Amino acid sequence: MDKKVDVLVLGGSAAGPVAALTARRYNKDASITVVRREKEVLVPCGIPYIFGTLKDVKKNLIPDGLLLNKNIEIIVDEAKAINRDEKTVFLSKGEKIGYKKLILATGSLPATPPIPGINLKNVFVVRKDVAYLGELLNVLEKVKDVVVIGGGFIGVEFADEFIKRGLNVTIVEILPHCLQLAYDEDFCTIAEKKLTERGVKLMTNNKVEEIQGNEKVEKVKLGSGETIKADLVLVGVGVVPNTELAKNAGLKIGEQRGIWVDEYMKTTDEDIFAVGDCAEKFSFFTGKPTALRLASIATREARIAGINVYGLKRKNVGVIGSFSTIIGDLGLGVAGLTEKSAKDLGFNFVVGMAVAPDKHPATMPGCKEMRVKLLFEKNSKTIIGGQVAGGLTTAEVTNILVSMIERKMTAEEVATFQFGSHPALTCSPITYQIVEAAEDALTKL
Amino acid sequence: MDKKVDVLVLGGSAAGPVAALTARRYNKDASITVVRREKEVLVPCGIPYIFGTLKDVKKNLIPDGLLLNKNIEIIVDEAKAINRDEKTVFLSKGEKIGYKKLILATGSLPATPPIPGINLKNVFVVRKDVAYLGELLNVLEKVKDVVVIGGGFIGVEFADEFIKRGLNVTIVEILPHCLQLAYDEDFCTIAEKKLTERGVKLMTNNKVEEIQGNEKVEKVKLGSGETIKADLVLVGVGVVPNTELAKNAGLKIGEQRGIWVDEYMKTTDEDIFAVGDCAEKFSFFTGKPTALRLASIATREARIAGINVYGLKRKNVGVIGSFSTIIGDLGLGVAGLTEKSAKDLGFNFVVGMAVAPDKHPATMPGCKEMRVKLLFEKNSKTIIGGQVAGGLTTAEVTNILVSMIERKMTAEEVATFQFGSHPALTCSPITYQIVEAAEDALTKL
Repeated sequence: MDKKVDVLVLGGSAAGPVAALTARRYNKDASITVVRREKEVLVPCGIPYIFGTLKDVKKNLIPDGLLLNKNIEIIVDEAKAINRDEKTVFLSKGEKIGYKKLILATGSLPATPPIPGINLKNVFVVRKDVAYLGELLNVLEKVKDVVVIGGGFIGVEFADEFIKRGLNVTIVEILPHCLQLAYDEDFCTIAEKKLTERGVKLMTNNKVEEIQGNEKVEKVKLGSGETIKADLVLVGVGVVPNTELAKNAGLKIGEQRGIWVDEYMKTTDEDIFAVGDCAEKFSFFTGKPTALRLASIATREARIAGINVYGLKRKNVGVIGSFSTIIGDLGLGVAGLTEKSAKDLGFNFVVGMAVAPDKHPATMPGCKEMRVKLLFEKNSKTIIGGQVAGGLTTAEVTNILVSMIERKMTAEEVATFQFGSHPALTCSPITYQIVEAAEDALTKL
Repeated sequence: MDKKVDVLVLGGSAAGPVAALTARRYNKDASITVVRREKEVLVPCGIPYIFGTLKDVKKNLIPDGLLLNKNIEIIVDEAKAINRDEKTVFLSKGEKIGYKKLILATGSLPATPPIPGINLKNVFVVRKDVAYLGELLNVLEKVKDVVVIGGGFIGVEFADEFIKRGLNVTIVEILPHCLQLAYDEDFCTIAEKKLTERGVKLMTNNKVEEIQGNEKVEKVKLGSGETIKADLVLVGVGVVPNTELAKNAGLKIGEQRGIWVDEYMKTTDEDIFAVGDCAEKFSFFTGKPTALRLASIATREARIAGINVYGLKRKNVGVIGSFSTIIGDLGLGVAGLTEKSAKDLGFNFVVGMAVAPDKHPATMPGCKEMRVKLLFEKNSKTIIGGQVAGGLTTAEVTNILVSMIERKMTAEEVATFQFGSHPALTCSPITYQIVEAAEDALTKL
């Protein structure tokens, strides 16, 4: 063994650094090392924004100072194997590091659908790799027609960024609506209207049968029989947990293909934790495995594991699921269950809706309409989900809903929520959407 | 009696309409009437924004359609007396209206300090009156040097709007800092730095001894001995509850000069409720009377009284106090207790701080620094207050804190709060300020 550390973290993206920083916060003397493959680490959620907004891969990096300033060692190398008996990790350059506690934050890999032609030149997936994305940025300079496969968050965000570059963009989505796994149909329709307004061509209820071309992609053949021109194809159809190391070490893998963890983020090995995209997630509402993978979930799990390496203390109450996006100037957020997911899980619920300007009076500059939809479970009358469509405050308004869901606030409590208001910063106190949506629901409860 | 209605509301500003609308929401057949003095009703919090942003008093009105569309009658007249035995209200034009339930939403009047010269021409208070504020807007066209008396929210917001017109603006504040009754000194200093950068001259720890001039104001004499030129003086030193009607009707008045109410917003008369600025407020933290008066508190009380007219149902848990403002592009928010108020009330607490960009990566356009300070009570470890300085999301981030305070979340729960994040809409999940401030506090708890 070359050396032994108190806390060894494998993975340098969102979850890894936060696990290390949390471990440092609660113990200033522990030896803490992060091993990661990447020389430079990308901000994961920032990746789409490299291509229309930032226009430079290097503007989307997590600075190493974050760790180095807290006396956390960084080793750029790849972990090849875990020896659980020895409590060591073997690195590809030959080093062997011992650990007291090991935190796996090995993330996920982009899913690659088995479409003929997927290996043609100018077909890109969303790989968290500076050089690879730099190449995508270069190729984008020379293309005009782009096809995005997948109309989920990643696909929609890339499409919106490509539009900012003046490209012809088509999204091909197999489901009837874009963003359908995240939002109810009414909110998907708002998103699709905005995408269309901005010039994105939507081909929903459709799929890519073949990517065609000589060497480079030239066109895409759809399930509908149509063939569309494409100089570049971006594949954004989801991610697969990166669990190879864990599997080879004999750790249990969950139903949703993540490394199984208990409520303390501990794997089946007493001394090994797993956090972020590589770890299995469990629903706040049902306790059952869920496929949701987000950077915000990853960092939260990292905060749990990062303290639990010193003794099991923090518990994971399960994933509520809160995420937001922006299309042009339209913000879209969701927290907890949608009507669709609540129905699928057998919840009995009522819905409350409210629409009002997001500043007051509505004549204030930059004022936009904000729509809030809330779901309340009928028996307990507690809030179980919400969706928001608005402007730049959408994500934080959605976060208010998260806190209400987490604390199981009743419709009555939401209706008398003590929000503050300001003309330039919020909706009017007369029509504050969260409160109004709860009042609307109460008339049906 | 000219007629009798089920619910009679006196007052047309924030609280009155919401009380009437809530009463309508829960009973579509009740006869509901709002009596108000004003032909046109101003958005109360929007008043400062008439003078630099909207530049038109008529752009800051609450539309009557809000009530008329819900079959709520509006009578423009002044209530002169309440006859509690008869259950009638006598109006100045001679009408007498009977009520089953009466809701007083008579608001507040601007406080007028006894400064010599206060009655000179071009000295204005903040009266919620379209014609009066129209006159202020006219006079502003012709002046250059403006003195604002009072560095609270109203004074600061007016000063910032006057700056947008290119005027020379001086704030005279009797306390050592602007906004000192709302924020701790560290946040006041951030506000003062921004005010100064924007060109507002601050004369704190000082007071206006005399307003001087022949007919019109010409200068202002300060306690420090200095005399400063002034073409216009704006007085923003707070409000006084408008309780004359209630007093004359023999209703109990509270310590803080508001109409006394119980937790159902009921006055000492079984059939009369009071809401908004005219009503006494009680603290969420101590149950004791508090002087806080805000439109958002008013509308919340209105939602309580508006349903309780049909039977006592909704309870007021007491005022947490949440409000925000903006100076240039700097948002400032506060929820619950500050260090100062917590100390004054004898709380034993620790403070957590976090500063990080409000988008991620920090290279995203429009990114601003956001600072969050949280207070946790030592015994229970629950959150009792927070302050935020940031950009356009400040008020809604502050509202997240309100929900946490209301539901008594512990520092552990705040540290593992399941917020969602997005590059263009929130801080990074690695450094999300609310969570980081809780982690900071936890190391001291």
